Amino acid sequence: MKTGRVYTLQFISIRRQSTVPTSHKGELTMLYLLSFVLLACAGVQANTPFIVSSVDNEIPPPPPVDKAAQYARYIVRNSDWCSLSHVSHQNDVTKGYPMSRVFSFSDGPLSNSTGVPYLYTTFMDRGTRDLKTDVRSTITISLDQGTFCDDRKLDAEDPRCSQVILTGDFEFLEKGSDEWVWGQNALFVKHPAMKTWPESHNWIVGKLNIKFIELVDNVGGSKYPTVQEYFKASSEHPSAYLNKIPLTV
Amino acid sequence: MKTGRVYTLQFISIRRQSTVPTSHKGELTMLYLLSFVLLACAGVQANTPFIVSSVDNEIPPPPPVDKAAQYARYIVRNSDWCSLSHVSHQNDVTKGYPMSRVFSFSDGPLSNSTGVPYLYTTFMDRGTRDLKTDVRSTITISLDQGTFCDDRKLDAEDPRCSQVILTGDFEFLEKGSDEWVWGQNALFVKHPAMKTWPESHNWIVGKLNIKFIELVDNVGGSKYPTVQEYFKASSEHPSAYLNKIPLTV
Repeated sequence: MKTGRVYTLQFISIRRQSTVPTSHKGELTMLYLLSFVLLACAGVQANTPFIVSSVDNEIPPPPPVDKAAQYARYIVRNSDWCSLSHVSHQNDVTKGYPMSRVFSFSDGPLSNSTGVPYLYTTFMDRGTRDLKTDVRSTITISLDQGTFCDDRKLDAEDPRCSQVILTGDFEFLEKGSDEWVWGQNALFVKHPAMKTWPESHNWIVGKLNIKFIELVDNVGGSKYPTVQEYFKASSEHPSAYLNKIPLTV
Repeated sequence: MKTGRVYTLQFISIRRQSTVPTSHKGELTMLYLLSFVLLACAGVQANTPFIVSSVDNEIPPPPPVDKAAQYARYIVRNSDWCSLSHVSHQNDVTKGYPMSRVFSFSDGPLSNSTGVPYLYTTFMDRGTRDLKTDVRSTITISLDQGTFCDDRKLDAEDPRCSQVILTGDFEFLEKGSDEWVWGQNALFVKHPAMKTWPESHNWIVGKLNIKFIELVDNVGGSKYPTVQEYFKASSEHPSAYLNKIPLTV
């Protein structure tokens, strides 16, 4: 989701001859403006539809490509959706096949990025039911989801158009537990629209317990930071790089 | 890859006192302008780096959501990258796990969209070597890769932020065969940068032989058009919808 763009309110020009007396045009203009302000306030209060994700499309410059663990954290922190792979148990045609679906995720507010990807899902989804049967899973995130690769004029498959591949076991959290509450808050902060999703779907907070990390951030082959390195990298927060590394093409 | 955006050439203002005599400033400006024009021409000739993908970020309006097969074709036609899921055979930690990596793809030029996703890959990639061992695979494409979901203010996980999930068997094409040549051309048309990728990588053209299709394009659950319906939908070309269905929020 790319929400960094600025939405401008466009007034549609009415070409037909106006029948409103000139003396009342000022009042009507004020009414129009007031209605837009009220609409905007309502949108902000409900956190939707004016804000659907708080992750900006224009992310800070990345850490150096040789800092693999930090680079992996950078991608996770500054992205808000992923493809989640799992093993299908849905029908005879796909049974045992790897399948993948796009989900929104959050590893915490931007100010407290943990590296643990939390997801908001429902057992109404077949893929999620598959994960109940078989927890083996992978989360894949590409910086081409935002403007990073466009800004550098990189094809999605170009290894410099960075991507991270997190493989592990999916865990459905216990409803109401401290971690559930934390994960749900982490999701709501980055995806305010989720607060409005229908309760009847019985939303579940889940997370990926990462076992293996592949990072593609440069030519010369993938890198494989350890899980320990990945989580340790949080001590030097990726936002520390902000404005330190110039964006180069 | 979002290449619909307009790249503007920004002149960097030089704050230091200029030492160039005023009389020569006009000539220098001309030289600067000429060099930009020459650079742009070179870029266009090589199809890179000024064009890395010919798929526009601003795609035509979609077909109606109840036309599942046509909608699936619409996503495939108007997208240029995907996540490709496969089964890992890389190491003891991930063996048997579903893994996924982002690849560029093409199902043909926009004027001849076939629905068959072709990929350009190399056995230098571990994931591609996995596919040699086990061809079971899934391609997942979300319209959040472009501006579709932003334009409608939809979160990536919102079912109206459409995605298609194509499951099947991956096939590496015979080098130099008619289909290899066709697939390579389909890729080069949408990804001109690929022509410049290092030959030493021994690039392979592959495709997904689709067995099962899941489409998410609206609330109310996934749709499952048959493979036959999917390929038949090509007879009514998705571009036929251009300008027929208004973009609504």
